[in-house]
Amino acid sequence: MTETRPFVPWDMMNAFMIDVFAAYGVPREDAAICADVLLESDRRGIESHGCNRFKPIYLDRIEEGTLLPVTELEIVKETPTTLVMDAHNGLGMVASYRMMERLIEKAKVYGMAGGSIFNSTHYGIAGYWTTMAEKAGMIGISGTNARPSVAPTFGVEPMMGTNPLTFTMPTDEAFPFNFDCATSTIQNGKIEYYERSGKETPPGLVITSEGESLTDSGRILKEMRAGRCALLPLGGAGEASGGYKGYGFSAIVEILSAALSGGPFMKQLSGKKEDGSKDMYRLGHFFFVINPEFFMGLETFKETAGEICRELRASEKAPGAERIYTAGEKEWEAWQERKDKGVPVGESIQKELIELRDKFQLPYRFPFES
Amino acid sequence: MTETRPFVPWDMMNAFMIDVFAAYGVPREDAAICADVLLESDRRGIESHGCNRFKPIYLDRIEEGTLLPVTELEIVKETPTTLVMDAHNGLGMVASYRMMERLIEKAKVYGMAGGSIFNSTHYGIAGYWTTMAEKAGMIGISGTNARPSVAPTFGVEPMMGTNPLTFTMPTDEAFPFNFDCATSTIQNGKIEYYERSGKETPPGLVITSEGESLTDSGRILKEMRAGRCALLPLGGAGEASGGYKGYGFSAIVEILSAALSGGPFMKQLSGKKEDGSKDMYRLGHFFFVINPEFFMGLETFKETAGEICRELRASEKAPGAERIYTAGEKEWEAWQERKDKGVPVGESIQKELIELRDKFQLPYRFPFES
Repeated sequence: MTETRPFVPWDMMNAFMIDVFAAYGVPREDAAICADVLLESDRRGIESHGCNRFKPIYLDRIEEGTLLPVTELEIVKETPTTLVMDAHNGLGMVASYRMMERLIEKAKVYGMAGGSIFNSTHYGIAGYWTTMAEKAGMIGISGTNARPSVAPTFGVEPMMGTNPLTFTMPTDEAFPFNFDCATSTIQNGKIEYYERSGKETPPGLVITSEGESLTDSGRILKEMRAGRCALLPLGGAGEASGGYKGYGFSAIVEILSAALSGGPFMKQLSGKKEDGSKDMYRLGHFFFVINPEFFMGLETFKETAGEICRELRASEKAPGAERIYTAGEKEWEAWQERKDKGVPVGESIQKELIELRDKFQLPYRFPFES
Repeated sequence: MTETRPFVPWDMMNAFMIDVFAAYGVPREDAAICADVLLESDRRGIESHGCNRFKPIYLDRIEEGTLLPVTELEIVKETPTTLVMDAHNGLGMVASYRMMERLIEKAKVYGMAGGSIFNSTHYGIAGYWTTMAEKAGMIGISGTNARPSVAPTFGVEPMMGTNPLTFTMPTDEAFPFNFDCATSTIQNGKIEYYERSGKETPPGLVITSEGESLTDSGRILKEMRAGRCALLPLGGAGEASGGYKGYGFSAIVEILSAALSGGPFMKQLSGKKEDGSKDMYRLGHFFFVINPEFFMGLETFKETAGEICRELRASEKAPGAERIYTAGEKEWEAWQERKDKGVPVGESIQKELIELRDKFQLPYRFPFES
């Protein structure tokens, strides 16, 4: 697919986002972390979690008071291998960055480390955190809860978040094995994408309170907001095609995200108070870091992981299939395609950028304005 | 479903299996571990991994020389938090038991521990190992590779094992959260069950070399043996219903099972030499143990995990659905149903038990003989 949207150079977008975050009261050092997390998503071609979310998920929430611009991180418990932090409704991305810095140091000394954050907010792509471990030559595992939208097997009520269970592992290739996705078959961002593209959502991914499959993307979004439909776990409704397995993975993330810290979970994360007014999100995340040097060494790990990926890609393709990918490969290719061009920005994001620039009278002139 | 098969009391079956393992040259202490692992599967109602496998997967393999009755465990690397062991083609269940004993001790002191075993054989239900952690008040995570049977997304060639990714976590309920299943939608044992029951395998779970879905259970088993069809990952063929996610989970297990130890993987695990003769299985397993006392405490963990399970079960059911389960609940109920009765044994297992008893002239008389 040829990109028809205009690009904004990476450096410019990064500097602009830092300036805007700072204008919203985020300390510049923290703003740099947040800009990098959001842009990393765009670098990987995961546009659902990139600069499209800059305003609605971060700036607007700072403005409405459900996300505090200054992240007052509190260490609630620390041992040589573990760390629990209260993010006090500050930036989940800042809290997670500080967490991973410390866990990597711990895993350098002890081989294994684990942490949990509670009272947090959206932490961006889970794969950013696991990639921090991978860049340090380690295995990263992370997950987060989120507002309830996924029904358990045989259920129709939105109970669990789309709960990513993410693993990034070093390989001897140009890119790591990076598995970063929701444990539901689909997540909200993809349905929003279908709606914007005028496409139906494939059948069997969304269930109504009446137990029926819904495919009208616009209607799904409306019913989701009203709590009258839910996403189905990976494997679909019922048990015949393994839906209980996707449900199990969702529940694992739900438990690990809350139980290690004793933080909130499921309906407590609706973002709404009982009277319907806006509430803090109070999300929970978990992180594990495993250092292969404490097993048979990083080089051994990388070679084996790389060889597994290569053999998978070289295996016999289905008739009509062009390629077999391994996890993280598409993201790597998106970066190759974009690294010299910049972030592609559609019209709605262009409008947001201009409005933010003008609001704070920032000295930027975007390429798409010429 | 009312059980029509006769039962053998747990104690009798346990003693019998130990005697038979011992007659095959397994040291009695090791035999007791293996009998307990196999019977735990029956206790949980997971009959695909219980005493039905006693003869074909363990005794027959000892006899043919692909599984050594005496497990010469070698510690290849050990640190305060990690352990790598070479099982030298001995009993995977014995190796895994020794591994978990040590990892639990490590996690008592350090909060986190991880291990990997290579050159191993079938380790029974993954959930046995994670439950050892749970009984010690910890979180257990384990997985294993297996002979190649699962195709990657857009592929048709059996490359990965059915690779369970298993988590057992303590709760404040009578039973833990126990998620123990293959990362493919279906595993071989279930297809064998469909065939014995004269049932078709549901569509979309198995793919032929021609890229077609196969449902004739007998034909699937035949084509599988010939390498002409493969199991599909959780989420099915292609990407539309999330098949790349199931593929990702399978690949994670494939990598973790081999790369931490530098052991064999995928096609190297076919159990056949190039000339078609039988080869050692050389499986790899991984284990992680996380001690909640190093986070916010076991009681906090249990309460939160239990409450999440209770709320999931109490959520709104789909029309026509009787119950919503949480992972491990059905296994717990199977045990409640069976604990006073014993192991249900069908005709083929009865025959095997009698033959083994007579072969070694063991002093047992089974209830089904009267």
